[in-house]
Amino acid sequence: MSDIKNRQILLVARPEGEPKPSDFQLVESDVPALGEGEVLCQTIYLSLDPYMRGRMNESKNYAKPVELGMVMEGGCVGKVIASNDSKFAEGDIVEGKGGWQSLFALPGKALRKIDPAWGPISTSVGVLGMPGMTAYTGLLNIGKPQPDETVVVAAASGAVGSVVGQIARIKGARAVGIAGSKEKCQYVTDAFGFDACVNHRADDFEEQITGACPDGIDVYFENVAGKVFETVLPLFNPFARIPVCGTIAIANDTGLPPGPNQMHYMLRQILTKRLTFRGFIVSDFADQKEEAFSTLGGWIREDKLRYKEDIVDGLENAPEALIGLLKGENFGKLVIRVSDDPTK
Amino acid sequence: MSDIKNRQILLVARPEGEPKPSDFQLVESDVPALGEGEVLCQTIYLSLDPYMRGRMNESKNYAKPVELGMVMEGGCVGKVIASNDSKFAEGDIVEGKGGWQSLFALPGKALRKIDPAWGPISTSVGVLGMPGMTAYTGLLNIGKPQPDETVVVAAASGAVGSVVGQIARIKGARAVGIAGSKEKCQYVTDAFGFDACVNHRADDFEEQITGACPDGIDVYFENVAGKVFETVLPLFNPFARIPVCGTIAIANDTGLPPGPNQMHYMLRQILTKRLTFRGFIVSDFADQKEEAFSTLGGWIREDKLRYKEDIVDGLENAPEALIGLLKGENFGKLVIRVSDDPTK
Repeated sequence: MSDIKNRQILLVARPEGEPKPSDFQLVESDVPALGEGEVLCQTIYLSLDPYMRGRMNESKNYAKPVELGMVMEGGCVGKVIASNDSKFAEGDIVEGKGGWQSLFALPGKALRKIDPAWGPISTSVGVLGMPGMTAYTGLLNIGKPQPDETVVVAAASGAVGSVVGQIARIKGARAVGIAGSKEKCQYVTDAFGFDACVNHRADDFEEQITGACPDGIDVYFENVAGKVFETVLPLFNPFARIPVCGTIAIANDTGLPPGPNQMHYMLRQILTKRLTFRGFIVSDFADQKEEAFSTLGGWIREDKLRYKEDIVDGLENAPEALIGLLKGENFGKLVIRVSDDPTK
Repeated sequence: MSDIKNRQILLVARPEGEPKPSDFQLVESDVPALGEGEVLCQTIYLSLDPYMRGRMNESKNYAKPVELGMVMEGGCVGKVIASNDSKFAEGDIVEGKGGWQSLFALPGKALRKIDPAWGPISTSVGVLGMPGMTAYTGLLNIGKPQPDETVVVAAASGAVGSVVGQIARIKGARAVGIAGSKEKCQYVTDAFGFDACVNHRADDFEEQITGACPDGIDVYFENVAGKVFETVLPLFNPFARIPVCGTIAIANDTGLPPGPNQMHYMLRQILTKRLTFRGFIVSDFADQKEEAFSTLGGWIREDKLRYKEDIVDGLENAPEALIGLLKGENFGKLVIRVSDDPTK
């Protein structure tokens, strides 16, 4: 394999506000050395997700930042090309945190073997991967939707939000989405079957979302923060549950927005309406992985759960694609096809 | 009883900001007529509590406001003087929502019979009443303190806060109080046995509370909001739980404070530290009443749980006493002695 090179995208600058292409650098490097128990994989798909913005900041988030000069983090679907772990053989399809590179080596225990019979292997970083499990665990452990309740989902056309609303409906609740364009809203109701979806860029967003929730909001699945959150907060019903999964609308903020200071209004709402806010990340529910994937897979086979992918070709296009994702420009689960999918 | 008159304190104006004595009016009226199943009581003790400020506003809080011209709401300990309910006999001591008046008539099912053998009957509106049960249910259902965790309690010298910290210690946690004077802080550590207590009026409050919580904060029992909340928010540990019981520091606010807008910072904290905020009122846990009172009573008998009362004589002094309570001027569970305690 001496003629093969690894292609990597490094984080070389920390963005102030929105990330720029120059914050990233594409480099060639040697094939990773394979340690004991490790598995070498060729990347097929690289998942791009909103959480990556947080990893680009210096400050500790819930995870350590990516260090400057290091490969950007990311979930990957790969094909095993060499293995020091007897559980993995050449040609196996696996999922793991390979990062933004064309080859990655990880300990076998950090990899999940993927059966292509489950569906397109790209879904193992989507609806049958981290985003799907995020939706499943956050909604069911924290949101706990009940029949006929109203569940409002921010970023409803996205990889997580689209699954949240569909699970809410499976559980008998009413699903109301919020998305960033007319076209996305249309798709959310037509393809994902939400009861309604409202465009947060519309001038009359507040009237529209209020009208779409005539009985108030019982569960709000928070992916965005910012203006959308401010608008739905007064609509929460007593005992509403708010799983806090992301705050992408304020991800690029470098300071606090101007006043008035609504924090105390929020505390008053929590008190007087007995709201429950709970932040989570998917790994908090790691012990529910098997249940989540087997349930989600079953719903897909029964056509109760649908998904949409947005596949971009070429590792070199990952920076621009992430920048677009953070602006809400993509539509569907964003995945970079780093090399040909051998199952297609 | 034709020569007996009822004395009542009515709400006659809605305060803008801090309540004033002129918002209240003392009147004489006839003895309440006794309906079917009702019990007529002479008020012995009237409880004054922070929640009363909310009832004076026009806007619906978690409960309906007191209407203008109506008797102020409040919990009372009374002596039965006439009864249309066979479960209650003349001379019985009872607890119920009698309001700010010297005589009250309530349905028997709205009354709780008090056994003077349990302790001073005034405690049935204190440590063995609504405030004690608020502390017990909020801390144990939402805060869930674990051994060696740090539990921070706002308004630590008050009727609720003093019980919260002592239960935290009974559960093996470290209790750190926040109170409004040196003297109160001294009492919180000396008499209530908190591990530390910090004066929020001190110039170096932030340094002091940070120093008192070297391992961060795992449970924050919120009674106050305002500056105290802003100061402790950055100290929360991952997975911290925040029972939101009150927001007394902002109770008089008529608008939102000036910026910056910290609401999004709070959302980020909830997300990245996976915090749980949950608002509650004591009636949410009504089914735990028996367990709470029997457990609290047991702890008092074992001298594991102590309390301090602040008894003011005379119904006519209730308005000034409540105004002082809202300013943090009283110290201990504030109770108005409306008539002589027959058990003393």
